[in-house]
Amino acid sequence: MDRQLPGDPRFFVRSGPFTLERLAEAAGLEVAGAAGAGSLFEGVAPLHAAGPQHVSFLDNRRYLPLLSETKAGAVILGPAFADKVPEGCVALVSREPYLAWSRVARLFHPLPPVEASRHPTAVIGRDVIIGERVEIGPFAVVGDGARIGDGCVIGAHAMLGSHVVLGNGCRIGAHVTLSHALLGERVILYPGARIGQDGFGFAVGPDGFESVPQLGRVILEDGVEVGANSTIDRGSMKDTVIGAGTRIDNLVQIGHNARLGRCCIVVSQAGVSGSTEIEDFVTIAAQAGLIGHIHVGRKARIGAQCGVMNDVEAGADVIGSPAMPFREFFRNIATLRRLSRR
Amino acid sequence: MDRQLPGDPRFFVRSGPFTLERLAEAAGLEVAGAAGAGSLFEGVAPLHAAGPQHVSFLDNRRYLPLLSETKAGAVILGPAFADKVPEGCVALVSREPYLAWSRVARLFHPLPPVEASRHPTAVIGRDVIIGERVEIGPFAVVGDGARIGDGCVIGAHAMLGSHVVLGNGCRIGAHVTLSHALLGERVILYPGARIGQDGFGFAVGPDGFESVPQLGRVILEDGVEVGANSTIDRGSMKDTVIGAGTRIDNLVQIGHNARLGRCCIVVSQAGVSGSTEIEDFVTIAAQAGLIGHIHVGRKARIGAQCGVMNDVEAGADVIGSPAMPFREFFRNIATLRRLSRR
Amino acid sequence: MDRQLPGDPRFFVRSGPFTLERLAEAAGLEVAGAAGAGSLFEGVAPLHAAGPQHVSFLDNRRYLPLLSETKAGAVILGPAFADKVPEGCVALVSREPYLAWSRVARLFHPLPPVEASRHPTAVIGRDVIIGERVEIGPFAVVGDGARIGDGCVIGAHAMLGSHVVLGNGCRIGAHVTLSHALLGERVILYPGARIGQDGFGFAVGPDGFESVPQLGRVILEDGVEVGANSTIDRGSMKDTVIGAGTRIDNLVQIGHNARLGRCCIVVSQAGVSGSTEIEDFVTIAAQAGLIGHIHVGRKARIGAQCGVMNDVEAGADVIGSPAMPFREFFRNIATLRRLSRR
Repeated sequence: MDRQLPGDPRFFVRSGPFTLERLAEAAGLEVAGAAGAGSLFEGVAPLHAAGPQHVSFLDNRRYLPLLSETKAGAVILGPAFADKVPEGCVALVSREPYLAWSRVARLFHPLPPVEASRHPTAVIGRDVIIGERVEIGPFAVVGDGARIGDGCVIGAHAMLGSHVVLGNGCRIGAHVTLSHALLGERVILYPGARIGQDGFGFAVGPDGFESVPQLGRVILEDGVEVGANSTIDRGSMKDTVIGAGTRIDNLVQIGHNARLGRCCIVVSQAGVSGSTEIEDFVTIAAQAGLIGHIHVGRKARIGAQCGVMNDVEAGADVIGSPAMPFREFFRNIATLRRLSRR
Repeated sequence: MDRQLPGDPRFFVRSGPFTLERLAEAAGLEVAGAAGAGSLFEGVAPLHAAGPQHVSFLDNRRYLPLLSETKAGAVILGPAFADKVPEGCVALVSREPYLAWSRVARLFHPLPPVEASRHPTAVIGRDVIIGERVEIGPFAVVGDGARIGDGCVIGAHAMLGSHVVLGNGCRIGAHVTLSHALLGERVILYPGARIGQDGFGFAVGPDGFESVPQLGRVILEDGVEVGANSTIDRGSMKDTVIGAGTRIDNLVQIGHNARLGRCCIVVSQAGVSGSTEIEDFVTIAAQAGLIGHIHVGRKARIGAQCGVMNDVEAGADVIGSPAMPFREFFRNIATLRRLSRR
Repeated sequence: MDRQLPGDPRFFVRSGPFTLERLAEAAGLEVAGAAGAGSLFEGVAPLHAAGPQHVSFLDNRRYLPLLSETKAGAVILGPAFADKVPEGCVALVSREPYLAWSRVARLFHPLPPVEASRHPTAVIGRDVIIGERVEIGPFAVVGDGARIGDGCVIGAHAMLGSHVVLGNGCRIGAHVTLSHALLGERVILYPGARIGQDGFGFAVGPDGFESVPQLGRVILEDGVEVGANSTIDRGSMKDTVIGAGTRIDNLVQIGHNARLGRCCIVVSQAGVSGSTEIEDFVTIAAQAGLIGHIHVGRKARIGAQCGVMNDVEAGADVIGSPAMPFREFFRNIATLRRLSRR
């Protein structure tokens, strides 16, 4: 196992060192015992690679064996593991250890500040309104009439179509294509995301397929993130809408007119077909697929590779293709195994 | 439910208003009764958002409840629903309502005309032949010896390799990579499509894998469309061919030497492995996968998430992984459910 | 069946003609009999299209019927098929016919030499170190402090982030985004690959999701290839590592902290979730998915569309969702079919 520390200074900004008290304050941590008071910490590291100057982290029980051998100066973990830290290591206890870890790591490695700059190669159209402290990379294209809020970052080779609107603090990755779209604040699009192209709509005409005009838009509400090479088609008759705070991973497809609620999670390679409506706090695991024109209730959880052909009730846990409740799915597996072995 | 109308004037061209007669003529519609004669219509809108000045549309029985409450001035629908329109609303009856709707919507929102223009930043190679009324966007690259037909649009950052050929009326989206390819007329490539790269071919050599030369091309016949971020590898020994009129959605993979016939439909995230041959009018639903070196007969329909390991007969309906007839698949599901409940 | 020959001279370099002896030497082939001695061959062609001046190839028993009718001057094939070649055709026998074919094809169609060139539109940052014979295409962006080894090719519109390192002989395709990454020698990235962006990591905070800093890198060892539009996220706490010689096809997702060993094969649209560790010589077929935090042993084979939720032992063959041994999977299918027919 390699001992490469995270935060390679070639790629990441570094801050610190910080006292334990400063870290605890930043992350809302409870320090178990007086150990470590006044010590300075220089960074974060995984359990196996950390030294006394590092803060480490345990969340997954699977990695518990690494805890007893760690040389970390302090470890962030849940209350259940607090008494498992080896001698000389400070337990930083949190009911939300991953969140606490995240904040400590961000303290050591803050995002670089956004500074107003416009690469001379960028092509900016007419009547574009650009806010304060906006950074525009090489070969970016911004179409006529676009509005870009304060503190936005437009990556290299990004292509913003005419009249798109970006709220404050958006980050548009390299090679993104964005058109027919209105973005809230703090929307992040990762490299190669395609937002706003025509949906897959056509009618059968006398000489083959005829494309149906796709006259809607894409609305990405505040805090939405869309992963690398994911695709979100604009609506045909109404808008395709992604609710505030929703996180979409890489290589995900969202069809035209689909609506996702707030704080949904859509994991890599999943697909949501056209006109499907998904309420708040829904999780769609990797490679799952939802057909069009269905409804998924609040807090439903759709398992990996699930094939959803019908509405899903609020709070339901479904998996399988076609989708069924988790219990039924695993009971089916067991039944079939038993019958096959006879 | 929001009442945002389609066709946001920031993003879409508008035309009209039009009389009912003009609409009926454009779309081959039959007007039921004399109602609405002479009225002017301003645009299209979904049932729930339409007003008296709008034409709306019903195709899916699921949305029938919205019809009785619509305030639309006219609704395009099939004969079965013609007597369901509320008072004051004109039924525009068509045996192909979706096609009629498409044409009416296009009348109100025509595609912007293509005008000859070449962005000064575009890099055009030697011996390139460019037709009439060709539009070339910022940072586009056109390789030596390419031929671009009349009325083509080459999007921003598109990369056309040496000697590619585009027939008349092709539209190459932003960020497309196209090489080793011959395109017919009216081919549309959506943003980020990758056409013509090496197929996934390698032999096991003494020191690891050795790439096998990929010496074929990609042929996209007239009217083919390829969705955003989809990938079509060029052939190894023969060509990868997509037949005329075939529509490929987003994030689809087509392997080297594959051949798709005319007017096929390949929905998002489906994959066709190398050397597989697919006849005309085949539908491949979302996330389905076909292994290599198989044959799929004319008008076969392959269900969502289907895993096709063997040839599929003409006209067959298959689903499941491995693929089986629809009836068998759903009978299996029912059998297993019954046995598990015992 | 069309008779288009591979190696369209518009798209591919041509070399030759070559004598049979030269071909045999290049590919380690055994010439069965004295036939063909001194003949000159001009190129390669598939069985159905080859003429007497062509070398052809048979590997898949499925195409045996084409062998008896071929007009090829010579055919590369395995010992089992050596006596099946028609009269006048030379059998070029190899225990590794695909490898031999690959080398013969490469002899006729060598890769074009890489020549030192930097397109005037390319944007090169400060303190970049560029080796000998490096080719940099139009609109490429190379970030500050990057190091590019000898003989590398940087495609049009490629975006290399600050401080990335490329060993000798790497080929970065058009529209690639590469950041936070260290590449060995001869790494090939196909168009639109996204390497090094943030992984999909967030914690639940009081106001929604909070992104967890992704502080690792991507390490691509010698000879790795990554297909078009595939995505490899950088690690969060440790690195995402792809072992030497591993081949990744198009539209594949590799999550943060994942580790793949040497000479693995990951076929199109497969996905490997975060922190999963895969040993050497593992094959992951198309559209398979692996959840996070699991371990896959050496030489395991994971079937198409397989859903892997648990560790996989070395040498195991698994398929199905959830994954199970091949035998069990097909026995289950047979059992269910039998029970359904009652």
